[in-house]
Formats: sequence, C-alpha cells, structure tokens
Amino acid sequence: MRKQSPQTISEVQKIWHRVMSILYRSGGCSVKIPSSNELAREFGVARSTVRIALEKLTEEGFLVTRRGSGTFTNPRQRLNADWSAPLIGLMVLDCNLFFYSPELQGELECFFGEFRNTGWNIRLVTGQMDTPEAAREILTHSYLDGVISFGCKEFVVRAADEMMPTVSMGYRVSGVTNVHPDYSRVIRELFARTGRSRDIFVWSSFPDESRNDFLSTLRREPGVEIIGSPHEADIVGGGSYAAVRKLFSKRCPDWIAIHPMHLPELRRIVIDLYGEERARRLLWIFLTLPNPDPEWPGFTIRADRRAEVRAAIDILRRKLGGEAGPIPDFAVEGGMIF
Amino acid sequence: MRKQSPQTISEVQKIWHRVMSILYRSGGCSVKIPSSNELAREFGVARSTVRIALEKLTEEGFLVTRRGSGTFTNPRQRLNADWSAPLIGLMVLDCNLFFYSPELQGELECFFGEFRNTGWNIRLVTGQMDTPEAAREILTHSYLDGVISFGCKEFVVRAADEMMPTVSMGYRVSGVTNVHPDYSRVIRELFARTGRSRDIFVWSSFPDESRNDFLSTLRREPGVEIIGSPHEADIVGGGSYAAVRKLFSKRCPDWIAIHPMHLPELRRIVIDLYGEERARRLLWIFLTLPNPDPEWPGFTIRADRRAEVRAAIDILRRKLGGEAGPIPDFAVEGGMIF
Repeated sequence: MRKQSPQTISEVQKIWHRVMSILYRSGGCSVKIPSSNELAREFGVARSTVRIALEKLTEEGFLVTRRGSGTFTNPRQRLNADWSAPLIGLMVLDCNLFFYSPELQGELECFFGEFRNTGWNIRLVTGQMDTPEAAREILTHSYLDGVISFGCKEFVVRAADEMMPTVSMGYRVSGVTNVHPDYSRVIRELFARTGRSRDIFVWSSFPDESRNDFLSTLRREPGVEIIGSPHEADIVGGGSYAAVRKLFSKRCPDWIAIHPMHLPELRRIVIDLYGEERARRLLWIFLTLPNPDPEWPGFTIRADRRAEVRAAIDILRRKLGGEAGPIPDFAVEGGMIF
Repeated sequence: MRKQSPQTISEVQKIWHRVMSILYRSGGCSVKIPSSNELAREFGVARSTVRIALEKLTEEGFLVTRRGSGTFTNPRQRLNADWSAPLIGLMVLDCNLFFYSPELQGELECFFGEFRNTGWNIRLVTGQMDTPEAAREILTHSYLDGVISFGCKEFVVRAADEMMPTVSMGYRVSGVTNVHPDYSRVIRELFARTGRSRDIFVWSSFPDESRNDFLSTLRREPGVEIIGSPHEADIVGGGSYAAVRKLFSKRCPDWIAIHPMHLPELRRIVIDLYGEERARRLLWIFLTLPNPDPEWPGFTIRADRRAEVRAAIDILRRKLGGEAGPIPDFAVEGGMIF
C-alpha cells in the first residue's frame, strides 16, 4: 500500500466518513457510491485523495468494485452490529483530550453502561473544536443522528443543537435541553448541619461556578457568599497556597468546597491558623472526587450520573422520535456521601 | 482566530501532542518549551503550522508566553488530574471505528470501570492504523507509557509492543503478552451435554476462528470438525442463507455456534429440514451476545471481561515497573450462561 502524504489524512477521513455513512444507511443492500470524480468535486479535493480513501475502504472490506459498473457498498460487511440503529455522538469535554482522568473514566463507565441498553451505535466525537466553525465542520462530517454532550463548551453544544437532536449534560447551556443534577435538597441539609442559612462564607477551589452545578446552585442562595481563586490552579502553582493562607487568616470560611487533592495543604493552613478542633468543625465539602481521608469529617457531593445518563437517553429518544417543540431541562436529584 | 487550512490539521495535532507531553512530564513546574523554530525543524513543518498549534495551546490555557523569555507550560493548568500517573493507551479494534456497537459499549464499560481504580490516565488511541508504519507513526506521536489493546490486528499490537509495554486482549498475538479466556472447561461441559467428544460436527457463522478464543480452542479438539462460511456475513447477504440450507440438508450439524442475530433464520432452516424436536436437541451456542430467545434452548459463551481487564492491568503494571524478561500469557476461565 502506498504511503499517504500527511496533508491528505484529514480529507481522506472526511471521505471515509462519507462513504461509511452510505454503507450505514444502505439497509444491508449493495448501494452504488458516487464516483471518484463526484466525490472529488463534492469535497473539493484531488481525485488521488479520493482514491486513497476508497482504497482504504476496499481493503477494510467495506467496498467492492464491480468491473465496468462502479464501486458498491459491501452488504456482507455487517460487523455483527445493527446498522439500522441510530448513530449517536458522545461529545466529552470539548472532544480533544490528552487523556481521560480516573474521574472521567468513571463517567465513561456510566455512559457506556447505560448506552449499551439503548441499541444505539455510539461514536465518541473527537477533534479540536476550538471555534463554532470547527465544531460545525467536525459535526457535518460525522453523519450522526443525535448528540449527547458532557461538559462541552457552550458554543460546541449550540453548534450540535443547531444541526441535530442534542442533549447537554455536565453543566447548563441555555437554549439547549439540559440534564443536570439538582442540589437544593443537599444545600438544605448543609444549612441544617451548620445551624443556619445566612452569613455563610464559602471558600471554593473551583474557579468557575457556572461549570459546577453544586456551586452555581449555592451561588443563588441569598445567605451564602462564595469566594475562591479565580483560577483554581492558583492554589497549587508555586507559592499560591500562601495567598489562601493570607485570605483565611483574615476570615475563617464556614464551608470549604474543594477538589480532594487540595485537602492536605488546606487542612494544614486551617489547623495552623485556628487549631484542629475548629478545623474539624468547618464543613469540608468534596467536589468531583470523594473525601480521601476517612479520618477527616467531610461531605462528598455526588451526582447520580447513571440516572442523568438515563434521563438524557430518554430525552434524546423523544427528540429522535420527532417530538415537536422544545423539551424542558430535566433535573436529577443530587446526593451526598457522609 | 484564523481559519486553518485543512492540510495542517494533522501536523498541528502532532505538535499539540508533543507540547502536551512536555506539560504532562513537567511535574507541575513551569517548563520552557522548544522555540517555534526548533519545533518546525523537529517536525519538518512550516513555522506557521507550529504557530497555529502554539496559539491553540495558549488559548486552551496550557501555555503562557513571557515576553522576552519564551513560551512555558502553565503549571496552573492542572485539570484536576494527577499528571504524574502513567499515561496508558487503550487501543480498540484497530482504532478507527465508525461507531461502537452496543456489544462494544459493554466492553468499554468494563474497561473504564476497571481502569478508574488504577489511578492511570487513559487515552483512547484513534487513527487509521492500516499498516505497521501507520501504527508506528500514530504511536510515536502519542507519548504513551504503555498500551492495552483489545481486538486489534496483529501488526498493530506488534508495533505497540516494540515501542512500549503492551498487553493484548481479545485474541492472541504471538510474541506479545496476551490475556485471554480459557474455554476448555466449557468445552468439556458441552461434550458432556452432547454425550460424546468425538464426531462432533459444528457449524459456525464466525469466519475466522483465530479471532474467537472459543472457536480456536474448539478447533484444537481432535473429535470436532468446524465448518462455516468463510465470511460470516455470507449468510446474511442476499440469498446466502440458501447456501446454509443446502449444506444443512446434506448433514445436520451437532452444534451451531452463531451470533444471535442469525437465530431466527437458521432455526427456520433446521426446523424445515429436520423438525422442531430435533432442532431443539441440537446445541445452539451463542457467541458475542446472549441467546435472544428465552423459549429456545441454548448456551451463551461468556468471557469474564472484568477479570480479563484486571489481569491485563496487573501485567501492564509489572511491565511499567520494569520487570525483566517476557511475561507469559494469562488465561481467565470463560463461562457459560444456560
């Protein structure tokens, strides 16, 4: 097989997806695909580029060439899957990740565990979606029937929603149907444990509350004041725990809402300033991952991700079924681990 | 932001990975990255291409430019994950899938569910690995510490194994450490139910036994003869169930080992030829997915995928720890559902 020049890879990928989408919609029949010339015109690429894509597809068993009559999808290439099922895109955190963290691996376990019961085929949408145009371009060449997005940027979710049935999870995007956790009961419970619902000073290591449903709900409480570093990582970069120490020395927070990786350092600061007894009396609230220290009192805020994924699936199924009109957001009650 | 010309996307991706790998290994410090000139030379690309990649990385918050002194990794960009953890690639079915089927979604649920307990960061390796060179190129630019492959082609697994610690799952690749199911006890059980272990005529819808551990174990039994269509999908393409009918009319199989999607048609053929009573007495063996009809007798062959993933993780951990010498294959006992 001849070596591709690297600049054609992306065009090749577009044509690969185009032809795969024809196969996908062929209903198990042998369908004639457009000629090389037609594909070259459609994508504005050289015929040699089209030929590389078609050679790939033939080698992979997806196409057969019949001498004199053209190139056809191979109905024998069934891959043990139902090609009549909807093809749904899963878009995770803007789709271009250097890696999935253990936390995100847990989310993916929930997604795939629930998706497998739908009968849908799933594509993980990947690519650099830095702009609305880039998102639209990637989605145009994806040939998806619908999208579930998780933690993607607003413009990415909106681009998907304009193009196909879309449900958003992870944090809320206005104008799109969202599935999100509802933490109001959890917050009532935290008020009860603090003994009041006013004059509560919260320090959070999370920079952008709009990206965290617990904090954005908390932000709306009139008796709560949240402060934190504008950039969460400020407190881990060189010397910046010092800024937190300075802040805490002026005022001891009532609640500390943090990623658990910050517990050791922050606990040391509070104990230094106010003693261990008071440090233990504060409400330590762990977001994203559980309290890492069973000896230390704390509450882990937990979304019921499985229930959220099931709700997103139900909503997407209604949208795929052509239900008219906007479908309202759906809240799944969040919980707490003590 | 300016629009990229499509031919630079892949070069941009290479540089993006290169810089991300520097950040990943920076230990939370601010590390100076190579200059645009150095990167352009290293990758043999235009400086404008490097600039697009660096602009992206800066927008994403991974790089900061200090006037007069160069471009540095941003230690504040921690993404709530442990960047000192190993970065492990998960390669699934040759890494270039149009979609994940519900079956594969179930496998991914197992993978992510077990991986999340390792503390490793995981990248799903994607890309068109059509040749050993393509596999090597993609892996070179991946900056991974190790690989777990699942159902990948031999040359892809070998390419990974030559470059980094690798464990193979799904089907066996010689020369590489494999984790695979062991079906010998299941086969003894099937012999017992048939009342003999000789002269057993098996018809299978699976074309390539080397890709199925149950069938490849069965193939080694002296008393067993397996036939099937050379291409599984032969029996679903137009008119090819007719070929199966012709074959069955000459000789009734003792065991029928199939993907469950073929049950309705094959059952009809056997009932037409030999009557329902005899059809029910045959051993119907379901591979890949369970028996779809609770009213129809059959056995579903089942790998203990969770146990296999755990075994693969253990072996990869030993390899990452620098254990000398080859590590032998590891078999996890397979099971059956009645």
